[in-house]
This record gives sequence, C-alpha cells and structure tokens, in this order.
Amino acid sequence: MRNSRRGAVDPFIVMDVMEEARAAEEAGRSIVHMEVGQPGTPAPARAREALGVAMKDDALGYTVALGLPALRRRIARHYGERYGVDLDPARVVVTPGSSGAFLLAFTALFDAGEKVAIGRPGYPSYRQILRALDLEPVEVESAASHRYQPVPADLEGLDWQGLMIASPANPTGTMLDRGALGALIDCAEARGAAFISDEIYHGIEYEARAVTALELSDKVCVINSFSKYYSMTGWRVGWMVLPEAQLRQVERLAQNLFICAPHAAQVAALAAMDAEEELQANLAVYAENRGLMLEGLPKAGFTRIAPPDGAFYVYADVSELTEDSRAFAAEILQGAGVAVTPGLDFDPERGATTLRFSYARATADIEEGLARLARFMEDRR
Amino acid sequence: MRNSRRGAVDPFIVMDVMEEARAAEEAGRSIVHMEVGQPGTPAPARAREALGVAMKDDALGYTVALGLPALRRRIARHYGERYGVDLDPARVVVTPGSSGAFLLAFTALFDAGEKVAIGRPGYPSYRQILRALDLEPVEVESAASHRYQPVPADLEGLDWQGLMIASPANPTGTMLDRGALGALIDCAEARGAAFISDEIYHGIEYEARAVTALELSDKVCVINSFSKYYSMTGWRVGWMVLPEAQLRQVERLAQNLFICAPHAAQVAALAAMDAEEELQANLAVYAENRGLMLEGLPKAGFTRIAPPDGAFYVYADVSELTEDSRAFAAEILQGAGVAVTPGLDFDPERGATTLRFSYARATADIEEGLARLARFMEDRR
Repeated sequence: MRNSRRGAVDPFIVMDVMEEARAAEEAGRSIVHMEVGQPGTPAPARAREALGVAMKDDALGYTVALGLPALRRRIARHYGERYGVDLDPARVVVTPGSSGAFLLAFTALFDAGEKVAIGRPGYPSYRQILRALDLEPVEVESAASHRYQPVPADLEGLDWQGLMIASPANPTGTMLDRGALGALIDCAEARGAAFISDEIYHGIEYEARAVTALELSDKVCVINSFSKYYSMTGWRVGWMVLPEAQLRQVERLAQNLFICAPHAAQVAALAAMDAEEELQANLAVYAENRGLMLEGLPKAGFTRIAPPDGAFYVYADVSELTEDSRAFAAEILQGAGVAVTPGLDFDPERGATTLRFSYARATADIEEGLARLARFMEDRR
Repeated sequence: MRNSRRGAVDPFIVMDVMEEARAAEEAGRSIVHMEVGQPGTPAPARAREALGVAMKDDALGYTVALGLPALRRRIARHYGERYGVDLDPARVVVTPGSSGAFLLAFTALFDAGEKVAIGRPGYPSYRQILRALDLEPVEVESAASHRYQPVPADLEGLDWQGLMIASPANPTGTMLDRGALGALIDCAEARGAAFISDEIYHGIEYEARAVTALELSDKVCVINSFSKYYSMTGWRVGWMVLPEAQLRQVERLAQNLFICAPHAAQVAALAAMDAEEELQANLAVYAENRGLMLEGLPKAGFTRIAPPDGAFYVYADVSELTEDSRAFAAEILQGAGVAVTPGLDFDPERGATTLRFSYARATADIEEGLARLARFMEDRR
C-alpha cells in the first residue's frame, strides 16, 4: 500500500488530550475545556437568518472561484472602515477557511523545495501544510524577550524565499506593532521574498488595535478568516488579500483546487459582517475571561505568563514545574479535570516546558477551570 | 512579485464562454446555458430543513477532521444498500467537496515528481491539481471506439505510479462496466500503483447501475461527492473511501490541510441521503432531458454523439463542422444564444473538434436550447 513521504506529517499532540478528555467525559467526569481553539458561540444570529432566507430563494450552487462579489466588496469596505486602507475589492479572494488560503498562497508563490520562514512557537499546521506541498519550513526560534515574535535579527544568515508571521499569534496571543511588523516586511521585501501575514485573530484584541500588513505595504499576502472574531469556525470561510500581480494565478488555482468556498458560508459571512453588536458582546466575554485568567493563573501557580494582546490564549512557561508538558497536561486532565494543550504542538523543542490555556468558552467555564487548577496545584505542592 | 511555476496552471477555456454569456445576458439577450456542469436545483428540502434546525440547536463549530460520525456511518450504509458492499465506516472520510478529496489523495499517495495516469478527454482540474502539487499528469488518449475510457493497452509502456479513472465520466458520460473497471484495477495493482476511482456522477445513470471500484477491490481509493446526484454543488462536501493502511496518513493531512469539511454542509448532506424521492424526481428530469438531447442534437446536425450512460453531458465530435471548437462555441453563443463548452478544456488536442453539451437544467431550457441549435445549424448550412 502506497503512502507518500510528504504526507507523513506529525500528529497533533493535542488530539491525544482531546481523546482522553472525551473518554473521561464518557466515563461520567466533568471536564473543563481549555484546550480548544474555537469560540463556544454559534455564527451571529443575523448570519444564520440570512442563510435561512437564502436557502429558500437561491439554489446555492457554485459561486465564482474568487467568491461572491458582494462579499468581496464588503470585505474591502471593512479595510477602509477599520484600518483606513483603501482596498480594491478585486484584490480580495474568498477562500475555504484560512486553511484554503494557506494552500492557495503556498502553491501560488513557491515551487517545490523552496523555504518559508515561520516563527516557533507557532500554529503547527503551517509547517505541516508546507511539508505536504514539498516546501521546507524554516523554523525561527523567537525569544521570550520578544514575546515570542520573530525579529529581523532572528532571520539573519538563513535561506528563505518566504516569511509568514501571525499577529495576534497562536499560541501566545502576542501582536506585532507597526514598527515590528514593518521591519519584518522590509526584511522580506529587501531580499525579494514573499511576505504572508496571518491575521485570523484580528478583531479579538484587548489593549490596542491590531495592525494589518496592508497598512504598510501593497506587496504582501494577507490571510484572514471568519472563524474567530466572527465565530464561524465550522463554516470554513476565510479570505486573502493579494497584490494585483498574483491575482490571476491565485484565481486559476482556486478554480481548480477548490472550485469555490462554500456558498452557504459565504452568504452567512456577508451578514456576519454587519452583526457588530453580537460580535462585540462575544468579545466582551473574552475580555472578561482574559482578566480572570491573568489574575487566576498566577494565583494557581502558573506565574510565568505574558499578558496576551489578542486572540484567546495564554501561553505559560511551566519549566519550573515540568520538563514534559505532555505528561503534565495528562496529569492536569486527570487531577484537575481541565484539558489544556501541551506546548509541543507549537514548538517541538521548547514546548516541552510550556502549556497553552484557551479562554474562548463561557465565563462560568473559565471560573470553574481556574478554581480546579488552583486546587490541583495546591494539592501538588 | 513572486509567482510559482507550479501555480501557472492553464485557464479554463469555458470561463471565456461563460464571461461572453454573462455579457450577452447583461446586454439583454436570452442565453440557454448548456455549458454549466451543475444542477439548477437546490439541495433537497430535507437537507435545508435539517440545517435550519441545526442552526438553532448547535454552534456548528469544527467537526473532527474525518467528518461527523453519523455521516460516515450513513455513507457506509449506502454502500451496503446500493452496491452490496460491506464497508467499515472507519474507512469513510468526509471531505470539502471532491476537490478536497483529490488534494488529500494526491498528497497522501504521491511524492513530488511522481506520475499519475489520467484519461484524455477528462475533467481538466485533474491535471491542474496534479501540477500544482508537483506531480506529473500522464495523459492517456482514450479511443472513441472505447467510448473515451482508457483500457489497459493504452497504459502499456508508460511510466506511472497512480491511475485515476472516472465512471460515469466528464465530459462523455460513459461508464466502465465491471469487466473494464476490473481490468484497470488489476493493471494498477500488478505494478503496485495506486488506483483512484472518481465516482462523483454515481446515482445519475440511465441504462445500467454504475459499478463502484469497492465492489472489486479493497485497495482502491474511491472519491465521491454530494454535488451532483444530491444536488449540492455549492455546499462543498464530498467523501472518500480508503484502504485502512492509508487512513492515518489521510486523517493527519486532513487535520492540517482543511481542519474539517464545512459543518453546515455535513448536516445538510446527512439529511440529503434520505431525500430519495426528491432526488429521484431530479433524476427523472435528467432522463427526460437526455432523451430530448439524443433525439434533438442529431436532428440539429450534431450527429456524431454516443449515448451517455450517466452524468448529464453529451460529448459531440464536431470535426465535420469545425477545426476550432473555441471559435465554434463563440459562434453558437452569438448565433444561437446557447452557451456550450469547447472540448479543449477536456482534451487540449482532439478537443479542437469536440463540444460538450450539458443537460443538467430544467427541461424547458433544454427544449428551447435544442430548438435554437436546430435553427442556427439550419441557417449555417
């Protein structure tokens, strides 16, 4: 039986945690889910209502590959309203989630064997998708002192044809400010490399507004999604913004690789963009949860954390507590009834001494989870 | 500005036809659409109702990567009911359309530079997806005398590590019977090559039941979709059935490349599988349309056609009428107000003298289209 080499991607370690959590719940235990990377809320009511109407009136067949024109225009308008960026809707491509956008960007920009620099820790699928496409991830170890974001000095002396960053980042929630982002864009442009900005956590920010790479350059590829701020993970709809010179190539690839993003999800996404009130209420919950986490985690004994600027994660250095985050996560699950993610998925080396806590769910869950963590750590001392 | 070599896939020629048709309609002309490869009907009413309910009760977040367990079980049951194949639901993977299944199959099975044999004429995206993944399509010219399906003799002396067939096929609608399909599977297995069976037009058959490759072997990869028989093109949900030895690899790839197929579409698809009455009514329309086409096209002057076994296409040899199918399609659009697909998308060489007519739409459209074609051809003589 054939199996390709490039398809032999690493398993997600968090899947083991999730399976153990599931088994524990099946056995009747209560588990608080701080491992999941998605909101517990559904798509906004307006989005679901719009789809309900469309299902009556429209056959919802294929859309054109680049997406519903009205959605592309609405996304372009969003850049004007939110960032003051005047964006031609022609440069917006609606994709099957940000996952689809990564596939399009990587195949459109890079040939087999080329190298793409990514920060470590980072979203594990970056390196797996790159490998599956016969590209080489160049993992750049970012410093805790830079809040786990790469800086140009980290990239010196390395060979790469593309650079991908994320702000706010997963697993840390840290953001790049205008200066830091601009320095990385300049660094890529100076060597003729492609710059890809993963902005899927934009909108979920606490202290300052996230900066889009489009404020700084027209030559970047920006990837975003309706999954997080718009609370539509399972709908699989995202978008990318491209330089004009890459549009034709991405359009042809999209026609062949995907045909189109899910039509129903596009209809819902368009309406979600006008559901500001409901989305801001979701955001207020994350903000409250974040406050609880920043207070509760240190009290429980997880003292080495940096306040996240955005997203809904806290990345904790637990090197004083363990050298095996996987075993420690299993211990927390068994002992506290709280599922957390070992850092190894995000950083195969230093992740042995880190954990990611998600606070995307309801506030009552977060309160209960923190109380359990506090008791567990107390007992462990 | 970077653009990869592998991303430089060919444009769809039919897109030019569609754009001309759109422009003509915008200018007030009536156009009959015989170029489109999708039903005009929506998802079955039961499917839309099920989603309406789920949107109230469920957050519709990510599903597990392999798909909703209930949908995987239902698909496995379908193989028992329809084909008498006893299938373990664990071998069923729900995908973002058959497009997603192609991406998964190709990355899981083949490494860069490997060769996959495909029939010509065939679905153009096969070769474009292969190229985008740095694989080499080996296009096998199939004979009109074999109803444009490859036979083992066509593959002799060629170097290939995979073979993909389609039955019923696009653009011809022809099927492989048990003997012909078995001979191709044997041919692949004898050389240790992977066999991929595209069965997305199963269910749309007129004279005989289509044979699934799973009736003949457990070592094949079968790809299917809810787009055609289930009338759910825009929903982007399909499935694949794999040998057990490939499941783990495909699961990990799916987790990273897609996360999951659209949740809403999975809910709708599950209900669609019990909408037999509505789907059989759709099929009756295709069958009536097919009868009209087989009678009307020869009368109009398109005499060199083979009755399609399935799907909703007629592939016509127009070599007596033109040596430039693209120009001829443009002439038909302008002269008759009927949009048709030049064969060049499906066969870059012989397609210069073929056209594909789709009869997926309402019967009244087909009648009108045939009448227009007859008048046009009469005037042209």
